[in-house]
Amino acid sequence: MKKIAIYGKGGIGKSTTTSNISAAMASMGFTVMQIGCDPKADSTRNLMGKKIPTVLDTLRVNGDATLEELVALSNTNVLCVEAGGPVPGVGCAGRGIITAFEKLEELNAYEIYKPDIVLYDVLGDVVCGGFAMPIRGGYADEVYIVTSGEMMSLYAASNISYAVKNFEKRGYASLKGLILNSKNIENERMLVDKAADEIGIPVVYQIPRSHYVQDAEIDFKTVIEVFPESDMSEHYKNLAKLLLEDVK
Amino acid sequence: MKKIAIYGKGGIGKSTTTSNISAAMASMGFTVMQIGCDPKADSTRNLMGKKIPTVLDTLRVNGDATLEELVALSNTNVLCVEAGGPVPGVGCAGRGIITAFEKLEELNAYEIYKPDIVLYDVLGDVVCGGFAMPIRGGYADEVYIVTSGEMMSLYAASNISYAVKNFEKRGYASLKGLILNSKNIENERMLVDKAADEIGIPVVYQIPRSHYVQDAEIDFKTVIEVFPESDMSEHYKNLAKLLLEDVK
Ligand SMILES: Nc1ncnc2c1ncn2[C@@H]1O[C@H](COP(=O)(O)OP(=O)(O)O)[C@@H](O)[C@H]1O
Ligand SMILES: Nc1ncnc2c1ncn2[C@@H]1O[C@H](COP(=O)(O)OP(=O)(O)O)[C@@H](O)[C@H]1O
Ligand code: SF4
Ligand code: SF4
Ligand SMILES: [Mg+2]
Ligand SMILES: [Mg+2]
Repeated sequence: MKKIAIYGKGGIGKSTTTSNISAAMASMGFTVMQIGCDPKADSTRNLMGKKIPTVLDTLRVNGDATLEELVALSNTNVLCVEAGGPVPGVGCAGRGIITAFEKLEELNAYEIYKPDIVLYDVLGDVVCGGFAMPIRGGYADEVYIVTSGEMMSLYAASNISYAVKNFEKRGYASLKGLILNSKNIENERMLVDKAADEIGIPVVYQIPRSHYVQDAEIDFKTVIEVFPESDMSEHYKNLAKLLLEDVK
Repeated sequence: MKKIAIYGKGGIGKSTTTSNISAAMASMGFTVMQIGCDPKADSTRNLMGKKIPTVLDTLRVNGDATLEELVALSNTNVLCVEAGGPVPGVGCAGRGIITAFEKLEELNAYEIYKPDIVLYDVLGDVVCGGFAMPIRGGYADEVYIVTSGEMMSLYAASNISYAVKNFEKRGYASLKGLILNSKNIENERMLVDKAADEIGIPVVYQIPRSHYVQDAEIDFKTVIEVFPESDMSEHYKNLAKLLLEDVK
């Protein structure tokens, strides 16, 4: 089982990218689990066709939870979980993620579903101790950061890198590289290459901007599900293969 | 002394808006203090012409701090403070804000500088207990939320509103309204009006998008300082007057 955390600024395309590579991996025959770690709780929406109940909401409402309540299987064969967030203004968003992780372990989710790969889709705007948990707590083996050429997303990428590298020294998750999700801004590749250089990691893949994303999203679906033969699906499959390196 | 917190999503224009209304208020003869509460620590950059040391960095490096080290006066006569953020991946960003507030109080900043108005410029992407502190701890009297018509910024606005209203009941800061910082997206005013309706607060002002912002920003300056006679300065002054209602 390989565990990969996908970090990045809010709105940069983490969930879109993660959902599509999850679906791509599942289509190649791997058992994939995607865990949304963003209070927005819409990481797996385009896999499931709707928002699913979050671990934190379920625990809040029912006091406890079973695996069946927390893990949903998509049409595309991806195991979907949403950690959820705190009540706005109260509690720690980061700590909420941990509560969700601990619940999954307590319920033996990994032994029961036996995923080949677990993808964490993590908000990276505020890299406080809370949101850094997936990299500190031994939950993730590898970290990729989604960014465009926009200043704000590169700023977040640099902060996340700083945090990951800090923990890398202590044997935690290793920082593998940037995933460029194109916004088609001027000199975008150059700007991201420069940032990657400064951080000291590669740009592992450049995903183009594509209308297929919106066309699939209208029906709450992934590109992989609706346009499996498109160029864009090919891109997500290429990236999926890169991430799967040395799995199985 | 009136204390106003300006919340909103990262990148939406909180610091631009806050700096310009601070400078506008100062130009009207008010004593204004602006406190940046965003780990990015660039809230007052366009007032000071550069980034100033943060409270948290100063405390980390020197172990302690004096008011002179923490409070800088801009050309435009605004008292500038940056709370700063935690070391990425470690500690709580929100709690850092509190540490900064407590230090200012301990040093009697308000008694010494006697501001008529204090403006907090607060990141609102993650409304956890930490970032909600300015509204919970009795630090702010009123809250305004900066938003555009974009989905992500309206989502943040709705979350922040939920948190503020929750605390409002207990006698904390009251939610005054949305400030629309235009992105010129389709049907923008309609989208923001609709969101405001749902929240149950007014859109108190619509700031146009203007190249004057970028023209001034190149030199790390506010529109008020560089183009005091422009339409855009007029807009910021109008908004400043709205916020100053019943001050003095
Ligand atoms: N490669 C792409 N091409 C076109 N649109 C994209 C692409 N990646 C993301 N988007 C759009 O960006 C929006 C935000 O993406 P999302 O995955 O929800 O961001 P995040 O999870 O980082 O907050 C989505 O609604 C989607 O329409
Ligand atoms: N009304 C406006 N017109 C044009 N550009 C704007 C306007 N408001 C903000 N901006 C631009 O948006 C960018 C982000 O704004 P900023 O104030 O730093 O956001 P925040 O503090 O919310 O993160 C700024 O660099 C500025 O150039
Ligand atoms: S640790 Fe971060 S998410 Fe948690 S309360 Fe503090 S600022 Fe908010
Ligand atoms: S550690 Fe992070 S997620 Fe937790 S309260 Fe602090 S800022 Fe929020
Ligand atoms: Mg997402
Ligand atoms: Mg700012």
